[in-house]
Amino acid sequence: MPARRTVGILGGGQLGRMLAHPAALLGVPLVILDAGLSTPAKQVLAPIPPQTHIDGPFTSSTHIRELAAQCDVLTVEIEHVNADVLEEIEKEGLCEVQPSPRTIRLIQDKYLQKEYLASKGVAVAPFEKVEKTEEGIKGVAARLGLPLMLKARTLAYDGRGNSPLQSVESGDIQKSLEFLGDRPLYAEGWAPFVKEVAVMVVRNTKGEVRSYDAVETIHRESILRVALAPLRAAGKGMENVNERARELAEKAVGCLEGAGIFGVEMFLMEDGSLLLNEIAPRPHNSGHHTIEACSTSQYENHLRAILSLPLGDTSLIVPSAAMINILGVSSSLSDVYAMADAALPIPGAKAHLYGKAESRKARKMGHITITAGSDASLREKMRPVLLAQSDLSASEFIDSLCPPISTGKSHPQPLVGIIMGSDSDLPVMLPATKILDQFGVPYELTITSAHRTPARMVEYAHAARSRGLRVIIAGAGGAAHLPGMVASETSLPVVGVPVKASVLDGVDSLYSIVQMPRGIPTATVGINNSTNAALLAVRILGTSIPAYADAVEKYAKTMEEEVLAKVGVLEELGWDKYVTDKLKK
Amino acid sequence: MPARRTVGILGGGQLGRMLAHPAALLGVPLVILDAGLSTPAKQVLAPIPPQTHIDGPFTSSTHIRELAAQCDVLTVEIEHVNADVLEEIEKEGLCEVQPSPRTIRLIQDKYLQKEYLASKGVAVAPFEKVEKTEEGIKGVAARLGLPLMLKARTLAYDGRGNSPLQSVESGDIQKSLEFLGDRPLYAEGWAPFVKEVAVMVVRNTKGEVRSYDAVETIHRESILRVALAPLRAAGKGMENVNERARELAEKAVGCLEGAGIFGVEMFLMEDGSLLLNEIAPRPHNSGHHTIEACSTSQYENHLRAILSLPLGDTSLIVPSAAMINILGVSSSLSDVYAMADAALPIPGAKAHLYGKAESRKARKMGHITITAGSDASLREKMRPVLLAQSDLSASEFIDSLCPPISTGKSHPQPLVGIIMGSDSDLPVMLPATKILDQFGVPYELTITSAHRTPARMVEYAHAARSRGLRVIIAGAGGAAHLPGMVASETSLPVVGVPVKASVLDGVDSLYSIVQMPRGIPTATVGINNSTNAALLAVRILGTSIPAYADAVEKYAKTMEEEVLAKVGVLEELGWDKYVTDKLKK
Repeated sequence: MPARRTVGILGGGQLGRMLAHPAALLGVPLVILDAGLSTPAKQVLAPIPPQTHIDGPFTSSTHIRELAAQCDVLTVEIEHVNADVLEEIEKEGLCEVQPSPRTIRLIQDKYLQKEYLASKGVAVAPFEKVEKTEEGIKGVAARLGLPLMLKARTLAYDGRGNSPLQSVESGDIQKSLEFLGDRPLYAEGWAPFVKEVAVMVVRNTKGEVRSYDAVETIHRESILRVALAPLRAAGKGMENVNERARELAEKAVGCLEGAGIFGVEMFLMEDGSLLLNEIAPRPHNSGHHTIEACSTSQYENHLRAILSLPLGDTSLIVPSAAMINILGVSSSLSDVYAMADAALPIPGAKAHLYGKAESRKARKMGHITITAGSDASLREKMRPVLLAQSDLSASEFIDSLCPPISTGKSHPQPLVGIIMGSDSDLPVMLPATKILDQFGVPYELTITSAHRTPARMVEYAHAARSRGLRVIIAGAGGAAHLPGMVASETSLPVVGVPVKASVLDGVDSLYSIVQMPRGIPTATVGINNSTNAALLAVRILGTSIPAYADAVEKYAKTMEEEVLAKVGVLEELGWDKYVTDKLKK
Repeated sequence: MPARRTVGILGGGQLGRMLAHPAALLGVPLVILDAGLSTPAKQVLAPIPPQTHIDGPFTSSTHIRELAAQCDVLTVEIEHVNADVLEEIEKEGLCEVQPSPRTIRLIQDKYLQKEYLASKGVAVAPFEKVEKTEEGIKGVAARLGLPLMLKARTLAYDGRGNSPLQSVESGDIQKSLEFLGDRPLYAEGWAPFVKEVAVMVVRNTKGEVRSYDAVETIHRESILRVALAPLRAAGKGMENVNERARELAEKAVGCLEGAGIFGVEMFLMEDGSLLLNEIAPRPHNSGHHTIEACSTSQYENHLRAILSLPLGDTSLIVPSAAMINILGVSSSLSDVYAMADAALPIPGAKAHLYGKAESRKARKMGHITITAGSDASLREKMRPVLLAQSDLSASEFIDSLCPPISTGKSHPQPLVGIIMGSDSDLPVMLPATKILDQFGVPYELTITSAHRTPARMVEYAHAARSRGLRVIIAGAGGAAHLPGMVASETSLPVVGVPVKASVLDGVDSLYSIVQMPRGIPTATVGINNSTNAALLAVRILGTSIPAYADAVEKYAKTMEEEVLAKVGVLEELGWDKYVTDKLKK
């Protein structure tokens, strides 16, 4: 007898399809309720008699009850289901329902959702119920300010329920009301966010909660286009933004009933604070990357959660990942294949097609996940994939995500930070840049001084790891405190370059850098030898990115060949002539 | 119109099931021919009309032709198919067949396979055709020696076709002949291998070939139980064993016709040489780990290859991976679930159940893939999974794979190597071991001298990276050449500890280590400060294993708290008493 309980899913779209794969791996029987014989989920899930998929709407009481009759646990891959029937089924003891029908109902109404979360102390943007009249809207705008977000309380997703109001002129108000249709509305004050952020949270039947690393979500026309993991945010107030986003998301999900995965969307404000935007009580588009990039995908964890199996580890297993949605541009499926096929030649890129029989403009037809050993490599791999998305031809969107790289300037996604106390150290530090250029290592270079800009130095060191840096090279001369002070404020390896100052031949700098107290190491190289500092940085990077270690091996081979060539010339010319011809040049 | 051609698969077992997932992602329609309505592959592949799976044997001409009528390309997930019919279908132009039916036929007969590969210059163990008589077998044994492997030429897999003959006594010969049944036989000289090795090779329709990193395969009773990636092998003759295994496998597959993925099994001999054992013309058990551990799985690459799509990158995307087969122990399916569930609490472990309706002893019911940030962490995660496999209770098998760790001795899967020129340096280097113990870093410690054991030093440095080491800490005093010399022979970062010798207060050692020429860096720490060398190693490891970076941050916090506590005591006691009470102790 199979040890697993049968799960019924209301909805058979792409989220159901992505649930089907871990279900097969875990041996969990799944049954789908959705209209159509060959929805995305039904395609990858042959019903094993006596179980049969159900062809009908997930709002229909009859069909939901027909599903419940075959299953032990019901769950949803879309929240716009009939929550009342689910609650009846739960009360009658026909089936377990996860997450709780009360949670689903609460989330169906975005106003009630927000009101509930705010009552639990979760930070949200200011919001108000709104009457669908000009007077009502003007009143709210007077209190919450402009622009004002008018939002449908129900049946809103992928931008179909949001209308930003720029003025309270009659024409604008009427246009918004028309766009939002006959659904009840509420209003939100504009949150001038710097980034949108999402965290997937899984909660099991005992109420234990685990979150995934936060991702940056990038929308276009209110539809998610790109998600980037891990979240990068630097600057004042951005410390521990990932941890804070996870805490807020866990707190919000902790206020809800029932088990399963939840997608929590947030706004990251300029001062580093976070406001909760909304919660989805199901797998979410901003967690697709977890399939390839995390120990346990959001889909597998949803199944584990609702079946009371142990929750899976949520860690990222790769340094960087991106998810790019493939949106239909027309009715042509060939266009969809072409957009997906852009992933094929890119190492670490994987296309996911949803098997939808019909394409149409802005319909989610698939996505591409890209994993990479670094942010810089990720952006490089993203570019051709983004360029192949017919609706993204607007190059400023692609350039903003994958900016062109200029040599002699700091790379936007550096792995190595070169810092020095003064621009007078620059001539000594430049050879490091040449080596990093030669090895194709993305780096940045700046000036920060232990003595003249101590606050800037500390801020730089604190943010370094979360910005994606893996090594810091610090050059300093005389009472050379920069490398050791930076090492005291970061967990990254810090390579110190003793710069020869005006007296003592650089020995002062060397001792100041190398003789650190027990507890805080610096990796010291020879006096003025920034070449070796960069080569050491490449070796360190080689421990996480094998291509760099291979390149170091090739570099050593080349050095050997160069010396051997000189041996040949020496033999040919004799040493007297060698000195005259070669060394005197 | 869908842009993909339809693929028909002969065979619908677990390999077909694992092909179904990437087929869905790529939008490739698949049709299965196998006996049964709900085989592992058919379960995850609802036929989309007008296509229908076929219920029949993959040896039947009628059924194969029925499949061909619905498809553009035929392929196999098992080689024991009707190759003649496939060849007819290809000749009649009904369907493309990949790999070539001639390759399938060649591989079906292991003797012909070996004869062909040997004729192409591929290294194999000595082998001969054998008559099924005592005299015939004695003759072969006289030439190839004992033990002699008697092997079935056809229909042999999972140990069902191999019988090792220890003597040429009549009773032994009769027992072997009986075990091998009525199939034609051949004999192989015993290859006294130190490891078994496998490489997956993918070849596209243009004959381009790409291989995956080699894995170590560990068999029990001739059935694959564990595969480990990447292959680790150290010692004389083992240089570049991964590259050489890939070359041999690519060469062998290069001799065959047709596109697809091939599993190539080899023997690694004591002197480091490699002998080809056999080839499977299809996805292979030794490549299951590629689903989670590589950029592109063997399954996706098989589909890409036969459909003339670009081949996918084969790189490992994680430092270490293992595959553990779940074998049935009885007819009980609950036992199978229990063995799979051992994976659930382990971070990075993923169970794959095959959905087989019946379990029986030694039947492949599923597998577990484990990925990890290091070999040491991999072995730690493997242990509970292996212990849960009911048929592996024999602890010596588990202990040989996951040996217990003793402190004060070298770890079998070290990340850090601590070396020193002389045992007199040991007291200075011991604090490094305490730090690594404290941070839970697996390390080894040994003595090798630049001047007294130069050959040993070079061998150590050369093997370090391929053995899985990520950092070397080298201590040396006086004319302290060890760190710099080791750095010249490896691409790993080398941390140098200047050991204070009898004169010059350690300055000689410091200069000898830090003042390396441009081109070869050492990361130098303070004189006698092996504590900082170890802390630097932990920081370097933290760039690939985030938990170590987190631990460094916590360590800094603890140091800060300790100092702040002293501040409190100082305020309380006053400085005079502080010196008397605290510092004089």
